[in-house]
Order: sequence, then structure tokens, then C-alpha cells
Amino acid sequence: MITVLAGGVGAARLLAGLVQVVDPAELTAVVNTGDDVRLHGLHISPDLDTVTYTLARAINAETGWGLDGETWATMGALARYEAVRPPGSTAAVTWFNLGDKDIATHLYRTHRLAEGATLSQVTAEVTAAWGLRLRVLPMTDDRVETRLHLRDEGIEVGFQEYFVQRRHAVAVDAVRFAGVEAARPAPGVLEAVGGADVVVIAPSNPIVSIGPVLAVPGVRDAVAARRERVVAVSPIIAGAALKGPADRLMAELGMEPSVVGVARAYAPVAGTLVVDEADAALAGAVEAEGMRCVVAPTVMHGPPEAAALGGVVLGAGRAA
Amino acid sequence: MITVLAGGVGAARLLAGLVQVVDPAELTAVVNTGDDVRLHGLHISPDLDTVTYTLARAINAETGWGLDGETWATMGALARYEAVRPPGSTAAVTWFNLGDKDIATHLYRTHRLAEGATLSQVTAEVTAAWGLRLRVLPMTDDRVETRLHLRDEGIEVGFQEYFVQRRHAVAVDAVRFAGVEAARPAPGVLEAVGGADVVVIAPSNPIVSIGPVLAVPGVRDAVAARRERVVAVSPIIAGAALKGPADRLMAELGMEPSVVGVARAYAPVAGTLVVDEADAALAGAVEAEGMRCVVAPTVMHGPPEAAALGGVVLGAGRAA
Repeated sequence: MITVLAGGVGAARLLAGLVQVVDPAELTAVVNTGDDVRLHGLHISPDLDTVTYTLARAINAETGWGLDGETWATMGALARYEAVRPPGSTAAVTWFNLGDKDIATHLYRTHRLAEGATLSQVTAEVTAAWGLRLRVLPMTDDRVETRLHLRDEGIEVGFQEYFVQRRHAVAVDAVRFAGVEAARPAPGVLEAVGGADVVVIAPSNPIVSIGPVLAVPGVRDAVAARRERVVAVSPIIAGAALKGPADRLMAELGMEPSVVGVARAYAPVAGTLVVDEADAALAGAVEAEGMRCVVAPTVMHGPPEAAALGGVVLGAGRAA
Repeated sequence: MITVLAGGVGAARLLAGLVQVVDPAELTAVVNTGDDVRLHGLHISPDLDTVTYTLARAINAETGWGLDGETWATMGALARYEAVRPPGSTAAVTWFNLGDKDIATHLYRTHRLAEGATLSQVTAEVTAAWGLRLRVLPMTDDRVETRLHLRDEGIEVGFQEYFVQRRHAVAVDAVRFAGVEAARPAPGVLEAVGGADVVVIAPSNPIVSIGPVLAVPGVRDAVAARRERVVAVSPIIAGAALKGPADRLMAELGMEPSVVGVARAYAPVAGTLVVDEADAALAGAVEAEGMRCVVAPTVMHGPPEAAALGGVVLGAGRAA
């Protein structure tokens, strides 16, 4: 059994690689829900959907999120209402783009949650609808909200207001996961970590993607208890994130935006760090932080590279 | 000032005629909300939307409901989830078709209601968004639900389950408006009736479209108090409804499905009934029920016929 702690795009791509090298029925993804957001009354779970759509081969490969062949009629029609929305209302916001087909997923999730289903149950239904064989678990069924304090505006915002509305082009001086103290791991999460042959920390943002997963009470300890079998993949390559603000966020929060910084963050919970060939020269520095360092190509241009990285990760975990 | 008690398609067409013959700013529509339904967690107000879209010249002219040039991507995508919906869940029902652009209206309405806005407020915002100059009021801001008891199934269902899901192809032996006893007329409704030069009862279903409007406490009395200035247009022509089940419903509930049956139903509240030329021979029978009878073409094939009927109706009300 293989368990992957997952954020969005990078994690989804690695998972798409792993299903090529292990039986998907042996694979569990534990996915960040700190980015979840309610817009238009809809419960939107961006990371869960990115994982689902990617594994279903239905993802928009160009953007890395949303559905392939998507249309945007509802969003276009919402703009009409944004113009009449009274002050103080958050109806008809148009800064978060929702495709027409994607909206069906949010309608289904929102309706099922309103019927009393847990996010775990709904996620199992959604992944079944897409024909996935791996198990996808939200990190928790409880509400945890990643909140970022913006240095210049001096306000705290939700993840999507930072990431999408402000295009992560603003400095952050603090991050917290609101509600996480009271959250419980979703059913199966601790067992999936405890019973895995290899636990993988996907190449996702360590602060806002993996951070919330590890912050759910009990998860960090469960992962740390398997440290020798935990393999992290660095989302930082040659000092930069392939996508998104991981490098800037790390720097803003006092972490070194490099594989060494990643190693410092993960050393307490992971025994091995996979770094890109571009960072081969830093392997010694990574090992100095107390982690084994495996150097391999980590940029997943497509399925073959993803499968190869999946093989490297599993090999590293099983060899440990 | 002109006030129109309105259901869906027939009322919307008459309103589209009236705005050609009076200043829309002098026109108020009081619209049935007994057909409102929650599906996918969305608050859907079919009659309000049919009136709005028709007056905005955005209606699908072929169906009489929904938006012109509509697409159906969300509904198509929901079908995937209908297949995994657990027993007892009502998520992802696909018998009620919602267009992608139309969904934007429902998202906006639902969100605004959740923010605490009244249906009146939201309706004013929606009609403003569509550039309408007439005033559109829901009959009430409270929840009233038209419920039909099905003779053969022996169960009670909501209006849309009867009208859309069963295509009104089943016999009904009772109708009630759940919640109406506690409902209050929406702000402005009683004033619009009391202060109107002419009150028009649109050619809508007398039982399930006009019935709920008149059943809101205070409305029937307010209309009856203006009886001499109230002009109803018969939705029954030569014993049949142009559209929908009005004729069958009337017969099933013991009313004569003819202009005479309509006259019997409306005589307590309306002084004049406009009947189609096809029913000219029944004018005497209508007058025997205590209503003035005006014979005119009532089939609104397009804007010219609708405008002409609007003129007839206003003339009849003002002459009374």
C-alpha cells in the first residue's frame, strides 16, 4: 500500500505517474482541503478536483486545473449580476473562474454535504463517478481554512483570495489553518499512513498544500512515526517553484527557498528527499539536514516522466 | 398604474404586449412563486424567470422558458453523478433541465437569499440586471409550495414533480398551497393592486398559477375590492389550454374546462373576462356568471398580437 500526501497540480501529476507503476487499488491520496472555498453558495474543493480530474484524464492539461473542453457560459452570465450586487454582498463574484462542467461537481458536492454526507463520502462518490480506482481521501471532513496575512494590505485573506484573486502577487507574512485544532483526520487517513509501505509527500507547496495536511491533529505524528518509509519530492527546483508561489512564500516566512529549505521543513517527518538533477550539487547539504537525498529528474512533462518519478519515489521508500 | 397577476409563459407574453402600449414604469407584475423549487441546492423561481427573460427579450421563444441560445454543459455533466448518487439522495436529478446561463440566475438568487436578502429584493436586482423597467414582485417573500395530490399514485408531489418530471400526464385530485396561511404578500403587492387603474389577471392557469397568488392572505380581498377594474384573460380557448394542463386540471377538480368555468372561478374577483373569438358563442354564458365578456383574439403568436391584446385588456378595464 502506498499513501500520498497531496496538494493540487504537482501531486495530481505524481499520482498519475504512480498509477502507472502500481495497482491503483493499492494507492491512497490524502488531499489538502485548506484551499476549499464557498463561492456562489457552492462548496469548491480545488485540490480534490484537480486530483480527480487529472487521474480521470479529464484535466485541462494546459492550465493544470479544471476540465478539458470546458465552457464558461455560467460565469459569463454571472457578470450581469455582479453589476447589480449590492455593497457587502459576495454574490456573483467573477474572479474565480468556474467552468460549466466543473460546476456540476460543485453542485453535487454541495447538495450531498447539505444532505448530511461527509466530504469523505462525497469524494468517494465523485471519484467513483469518474471511474477512479485509487482511493482519494480529504485530509479531514471538518472545515479547515488556510488563511494568509498579507504584509502590505495588513489583512488576512483566504487561500483563493490570495492565490486567484490576487494572483499570489502579494507578500505574505503569516499563514494559519483556521479550525485545524478541532479537526479530525478523515476516516482512513491515519490508517492509510500507518499501514503504508511507502508514504509519499508530493511535490506540492510545503506551506499551504502539505502544511494543512500535516497540521490536522494526529497526521504529523503518524507520518513521523513512519519516517523511514516517508519520501518527499521537492517542489523547489534550482531555487524556484515550477508553478505557484512556493518559493516566495518560503522566503517570506523565513525559510530558505531551496531543496535545503525543503529538507529542513520535512526532516522531522520524512527520511528521504527526492531532488531534481538541477540540484544535484545540493545533495550533500540536504543530507546534512538529516535526510537521505535521491537525485532524479522531477519535472513531469508528461506521463512517461511522471511514471519514472513514481518509480524513483517508490524505489526510494522501499529501499529505505 | 397597471397591475398584472401573473404565472409563467402566458402572463409573460401578455406583459410583453402591455409594455408596448403603456409606459413600463407604470406596470407591476405580481408573480406566482408556488412553483418555486429547490434543486441542486439552488432556489429556482420558474415564473419569475420566465417573466424576466421574456421581458428582456432573452427568452427561448421556441420553448417559452429558459434563455435563448442556451447551452447545457452543466446538466450533461451532472448525469455522471446521478449514476453514483446513493439511495435517498436527491442530488444530481436530471429531470429538470437547467441551462448554463440560467444557472447563473439561480446561483445569484440562492446566494443573495442565503445572505438574508428577500426574494423581492433579489427579484428587483435580477430585473435591474436585465434592464427591465417594469416592476416585478413575487407574490410573497415567504415560502409557499403548490402541492398536487396524484389520483393514481395516491401521493402528493410538488408542482415541478407534476409538471416537469411527470410531464403533467397524470390525474390530480387535489391541490393545495402549503405554507400560504402564514405567508404575507410581498412588500408593494397590496398597494399595487389597490392603487392600480386596471388589475389584469393574465391568461395563466387559474388553479396552479393564479390560484397561489390569490391565496396569499389579503390578495384575494384586495383584488375583489377592485372588482370593477379587474380584467381577466381566459387561458382556456375553445375548451382547451393553449399550453399546459389547465383544461385537464380544471376538469379533474370539478370545474368546467371552458370560458364559462373560468368565469365561475373569477367572477368573485373580476368584473370582466376577455375570451377568444373562438368562444364568441359563449359570451352570453360568461355574462350569465356575472362578468362582462369581451371577445377578442387572445392567441399571442408574437409581439403585435400581444400588444393588441394588451390594448384590449386595458381598454376593457378603463371602460368599466
